[in-house]
Amino acid sequence: METLGYYNGAIGLLDELRIPMNDRACWFGDGVYEATVSANYIIFALEEHINRFFNSAALLRMSPTITKTQLAELLNTLVHKVDSPTQFVYWQMTRGTAPRTHTFPEHTAPNLWVMLKPQVFKDIYQKIKLITVEDTRFLHCNIKTLNLLPNVLASEKAKQAGCVEAVFHRGNRITEGSHSNVHILKDGIFRTAPLDNLILPGISRAHIIAHCVKLGIPVDETPFTLEEMFEADEIMISSVSTFCMSASYIDGYQVGGKDPERLRQIQDAFLEEFYQFTQTANHSASGRKQSVHKHGT
Amino acid sequence: METLGYYNGAIGLLDELRIPMNDRACWFGDGVYEATVSANYIIFALEEHINRFFNSAALLRMSPTITKTQLAELLNTLVHKVDSPTQFVYWQMTRGTAPRTHTFPEHTAPNLWVMLKPQVFKDIYQKIKLITVEDTRFLHCNIKTLNLLPNVLASEKAKQAGCVEAVFHRGNRITEGSHSNVHILKDGIFRTAPLDNLILPGISRAHIIAHCVKLGIPVDETPFTLEEMFEADEIMISSVSTFCMSASYIDGYQVGGKDPERLRQIQDAFLEEFYQFTQTANHSASGRKQSVHKHGT
Repeated sequence: METLGYYNGAIGLLDELRIPMNDRACWFGDGVYEATVSANYIIFALEEHINRFFNSAALLRMSPTITKTQLAELLNTLVHKVDSPTQFVYWQMTRGTAPRTHTFPEHTAPNLWVMLKPQVFKDIYQKIKLITVEDTRFLHCNIKTLNLLPNVLASEKAKQAGCVEAVFHRGNRITEGSHSNVHILKDGIFRTAPLDNLILPGISRAHIIAHCVKLGIPVDETPFTLEEMFEADEIMISSVSTFCMSASYIDGYQVGGKDPERLRQIQDAFLEEFYQFTQTANHSASGRKQSVHKHGT
Repeated sequence: METLGYYNGAIGLLDELRIPMNDRACWFGDGVYEATVSANYIIFALEEHINRFFNSAALLRMSPTITKTQLAELLNTLVHKVDSPTQFVYWQMTRGTAPRTHTFPEHTAPNLWVMLKPQVFKDIYQKIKLITVEDTRFLHCNIKTLNLLPNVLASEKAKQAGCVEAVFHRGNRITEGSHSNVHILKDGIFRTAPLDNLILPGISRAHIIAHCVKLGIPVDETPFTLEEMFEADEIMISSVSTFCMSASYIDGYQVGGKDPERLRQIQDAFLEEFYQFTQTANHSASGRKQSVHKHGT
């Protein structure tokens, strides 16, 4: 299949699959999701994403009817149905199907959705442009929910400005990107916003922190400001689709470029880990070279 | 039909109608909605709701492909297909159908949804119980969007506490209910939160203000606090489904009940307007007595 949509066991092309109008995604955005990528039909950091998925669900008081192991098996099976070794791997759970009323529905189980499509990996070493946007989101940004309107609006604003990402700030404090975490290097220290209800606990973020520790780069998880970002030696965003790219412009001002060696160390470590991870399974290694070349290693 | 779902021209029972998985409601809650009620197949305050709908859409940079007149005609036609003179009348517009990406999709028109179901009107004069909940929502509460997770969680919390509504407060300031506006009477003055990005410009709220003016009750639209609410003479919530009910308990504490005559004046005026409105059209007057009795007038 070129793409794959899955809904409670039904499978079809994404363009063709339909879901009940009364799914609570439709009226309330009442659900949580996860997204990662696969290469060689191996899903990157799947266990971590599934753990975060279950944590998001618990924070919204949703009770999955599938175990973590069953979900992993399902996803690992589904990626083989799509004719691309490199895929965007997305799944979500919504709070059941019921007539619209704000309170939780009774007598309905959560719905499980999966969405798979081919993914062309971007060049991690390219320099990107960012804009800054006031962070007007709710105070549950630690939960990966379907309530994404401010993220949508900020992303579109970035696109209209010729940029790839919008960096949110609450007043002077940098929180995160519209679909990424944001980090800086300054005086040899890796700085990133602390884990609280204002940012998503990014899995790429966690991996990058681990790489910094291994590389001997000190990590500082105290909030940093707009000014500190503009004056940083390097500015990076991380996510499942951007991995760990660095910025050369923010709001039209030239930024970063003052610590390229340390930046490259982090990026290389991230890519190497991704490369190793997607070689570890025995199945479907045929797509290996293709995916590796796409990463530019 | 017992219920009616409408999606871009397709019509079916709500339980049966299905929509494309790639509708942006499903991934982002990327849409706006309106809700009102009908009696005698006449939709209450339809023009005002349609105006607010178009305003919400514009604030999210969505361009309806239907005119206000066409939308009114569609809704007025659809309510006649449901076998109930009193209905919950709901419609929404989502930002088209496209593969999931945060930025606005190109080459796709918005999708129009309608949802109709029988509505049993509640007794406007009953006393209700409320709870208070910290307002953790985003800063776009003036737009009637599908990003309703904090509202869902607060509503459920109210239900679990045996209450009909949750009253949001940002710190000490009362904003609104999880699906209503909140007002108080104190020393003969009607107080309600001002129209800013923290509350929805409620249409019932606007009607109540107009009634107060006619009744000679001064209106004060400056923010009021938690303490002022607990010490108020009367506490009221207003919405399309609650009309204008008053509270006897908040967080388990007995409240209000100190200005019953003024409260009753407002409630009577609201009901009288509703009654008059739903008698003004020539069609389908057969359900009149039924709907009137349901209101307890």
